[in-house]
Amino acid sequence: MSQKAQIGVTGLAVMGRNLARNFARHGHTVALHNRSYGRTKELVEEFGHEGTFLPAETAEQFVASLERPRRVVIMVKAGPATDAVIDEFAPLLEEGDMLIDAGNAHYADTRRREAALKAKGLHFVGAGVSGGEEGALHGPSIMPGGPKESYEALGPLLEDIAAKVDGEPCCVHVGPDGAGHFVKMVHNGIEYADMQLIAEAYDLLRRVGGHSPAEIAEIFKGWNEGRLGSYLIEITAEVLKQVDAATGKAFVDVVADAAEQKGTGRWTVQAALDLGVPVSGIAESVFARALSGGKDERAAAAEAGLPGPSAGAEHSGDLVADVEQALFASKIVAYAQGFQQIQAASKEYGWDIDPGAMAKIWRAGCIIRAKFLDFIKQAYDKKPDLATLLVDQYFLDAVSGAQDAWRRVVVTAAQQGIPAPGFASALAYYDGLRAERLPAALIQGQRDFFGAHTYQRVDKPGSFHTLWAAEGRPEVDA
Amino acid sequence: MSQKAQIGVTGLAVMGRNLARNFARHGHTVALHNRSYGRTKELVEEFGHEGTFLPAETAEQFVASLERPRRVVIMVKAGPATDAVIDEFAPLLEEGDMLIDAGNAHYADTRRREAALKAKGLHFVGAGVSGGEEGALHGPSIMPGGPKESYEALGPLLEDIAAKVDGEPCCVHVGPDGAGHFVKMVHNGIEYADMQLIAEAYDLLRRVGGHSPAEIAEIFKGWNEGRLGSYLIEITAEVLKQVDAATGKAFVDVVADAAEQKGTGRWTVQAALDLGVPVSGIAESVFARALSGGKDERAAAAEAGLPGPSAGAEHSGDLVADVEQALFASKIVAYAQGFQQIQAASKEYGWDIDPGAMAKIWRAGCIIRAKFLDFIKQAYDKKPDLATLLVDQYFLDAVSGAQDAWRRVVVTAAQQGIPAPGFASALAYYDGLRAERLPAALIQGQRDFFGAHTYQRVDKPGSFHTLWAAEGRPEVDA
Repeated sequence: MSQKAQIGVTGLAVMGRNLARNFARHGHTVALHNRSYGRTKELVEEFGHEGTFLPAETAEQFVASLERPRRVVIMVKAGPATDAVIDEFAPLLEEGDMLIDAGNAHYADTRRREAALKAKGLHFVGAGVSGGEEGALHGPSIMPGGPKESYEALGPLLEDIAAKVDGEPCCVHVGPDGAGHFVKMVHNGIEYADMQLIAEAYDLLRRVGGHSPAEIAEIFKGWNEGRLGSYLIEITAEVLKQVDAATGKAFVDVVADAAEQKGTGRWTVQAALDLGVPVSGIAESVFARALSGGKDERAAAAEAGLPGPSAGAEHSGDLVADVEQALFASKIVAYAQGFQQIQAASKEYGWDIDPGAMAKIWRAGCIIRAKFLDFIKQAYDKKPDLATLLVDQYFLDAVSGAQDAWRRVVVTAAQQGIPAPGFASALAYYDGLRAERLPAALIQGQRDFFGAHTYQRVDKPGSFHTLWAAEGRPEVDA
Repeated sequence: MSQKAQIGVTGLAVMGRNLARNFARHGHTVALHNRSYGRTKELVEEFGHEGTFLPAETAEQFVASLERPRRVVIMVKAGPATDAVIDEFAPLLEEGDMLIDAGNAHYADTRRREAALKAKGLHFVGAGVSGGEEGALHGPSIMPGGPKESYEALGPLLEDIAAKVDGEPCCVHVGPDGAGHFVKMVHNGIEYADMQLIAEAYDLLRRVGGHSPAEIAEIFKGWNEGRLGSYLIEITAEVLKQVDAATGKAFVDVVADAAEQKGTGRWTVQAALDLGVPVSGIAESVFARALSGGKDERAAAAEAGLPGPSAGAEHSGDLVADVEQALFASKIVAYAQGFQQIQAASKEYGWDIDPGAMAKIWRAGCIIRAKFLDFIKQAYDKKPDLATLLVDQYFLDAVSGAQDAWRRVVVTAAQQGIPAPGFASALAYYDGLRAERLPAALIQGQRDFFGAHTYQRVDKPGSFHTLWAAEGRPEVDA
């Protein structure tokens, strides 16, 4: 074979197929491989006119058709399937070649795989790819990890196919080993929070304000023109204005109210717990989905008739304006928590991630693309070690301006018995962060009482333990 | 050696030493072993008069001094140290002998160890032991897992040393393999939630009500006589009435307000996420601790001056009575979530755990011992497959009676800018559980829009996908 491919894709289900087409459309010769040749053939037959494809029937042919260093994009189901593909290809590759896992792997798996392949002289790049099928074809946001030097040969190709903002690609080398998949995971966690907050906003507008889905679609459309402008707000308006053809009802009213999940939100919270970062916004959104899917518990509650508030209450304020404020403030908290998690992981694993660059590459191609990511980028560009987004001037001003309205919304939800775990939790986080003294001191006292866990004092260094049984005796240095 | 021991303890730091003394005080001959012999000698010198101890210098001597089937209690630091001890003893043991890990192991480790030792014909029992040092000596709550048949030879000894309620031991065979350590983990998770809720109650009484710590101690003392009666409420009163000898200030005011954690709360939330159980109360309590310990973020927030509410607000109602109601209702939610997690794990792993028995063995010896565990026991005795504690009549009545007050407390916290993540999250959970329709339907619509994840309908079975681009077209069956 005289012609060589710049890049190869193995795993040609819809995501892999669209990535391959995207590379080809950008003028790259693309080697193709799939476990069964049928899909490979189909792709060439259907989309062969879009560029130059080199279909291979076997892994050996596929590898032989790639120029060095070989760049093999793996797009298979995360988990054992990824290991199987790695085991198949690694023996066929040579020093300096690279395997790029573009699936949704857990970052710990990516770390393990990178270390194992490094020992064999191969580069393993865990690359987060966001934007779904459409993004894969037309320009995703790409978050590649792996060895820095791999980015020299790989980066330009990924930047070619990535989404662009003002000509700048939504792709940057995130950091070594699992950094790319970690950041993609947090992206998804933030996405969970974003969606939950939007859902609460909709629910309050509907149940408190009495607005119809079509009216709320218009409200979201309006919000999309302002600071909340984002893909998720935009599609929420689309979903809410949709009418179900079969029944003539609002689409949202014929959909079962049990939200599903694919795991990355859960992973984000689990990883945050290990890092000690309070991502309450993401956690509440994962739990809200779990609660919605709890058929038995909800049925039992309905049967038992758990009562709602006995007294009526009106919202005091302009509901639509207040909910917009609550939504924006809560969203800021969720992003602040997510970025803190990225910073904590970067420190823990020595990844040296630039948080501003993450905000930058999320501005297009991915699900959470939003206007306000520009401000996050600016915040971290000004101060890369910002302790929390909430103290950056833009966000501080936004939250300061929003907080009274935000409180009114949380109050109304509690008074009227409408669940708003995302809004309420974000507000509690905000009030916790700004509290001069937290009741955590009491918890430390309890812990010292029952478990001799010791405590620290406000007025001198050291660890102390109180002899609780011998009341009145001074505490001793532990 | 003619005399044989009924049980042996290896690892004689304070927990192991106290367990060994507890066995001896109950008339059992106890073999002793420790990595360094010094501790073994010390124990015998100091406490030899309490019973019959057979100190061993080597693992071989220790094993030889035990009657068959040998019962070896391991009390070392969870993690690699436990594996090291198992690797040391397993080769010296014979079929049917048992190793009992009384440390705070992760249940997944316990499952792994149990499976490995079963293959060698040995019984491995992961036993949760709660009550700290004092409990270990005077009667802990014990949650043994492992093979059912091991309980025949082991149970009576554990029941001897366990705490008692009306003569009934706080020890029962929880279920196979990791069941014991799982239940102990959830116990600790619930403990985190309990402590956080108490801390919020204290904070509100102090900041809204203007009560001094000494006054709040009296309030807790009063509550301890009622339905909230429990060890944690009791010691809270003790901690709050404590005066710091060095400064003459309230003890709680000289303690640094950064709560620490040892990991079991975090594990509980991580496991719940894997099981899809919404344990928001436990999660918020773990996050509240993390937030309190976030020095950099809190310092940055203080420097930036994140603003509080601009309008003043009074609590509308009897604050002390309302906070008691909020505390009790939120506590019920936390326990409902924890018990749901135990039931979910029991189903997932085939453990066949009796939830009522768990409530029963937590009534004494452990940190979360409380009067209301009697009602939990009764609820599950009546209906072992209860979907959620909240629908049991006792708890339904309690929450029904509490909810208006609970809402007033959440409202006041939001209005006055006092963080109450536990109260607010529990209320949102309650309102979510009883909601006829949740906005999760909108989330399913969003997911179908951007990821073709499909959705279910309220009016017919099947999975559906809407062709969003082709507006107005009917959805197609996916």
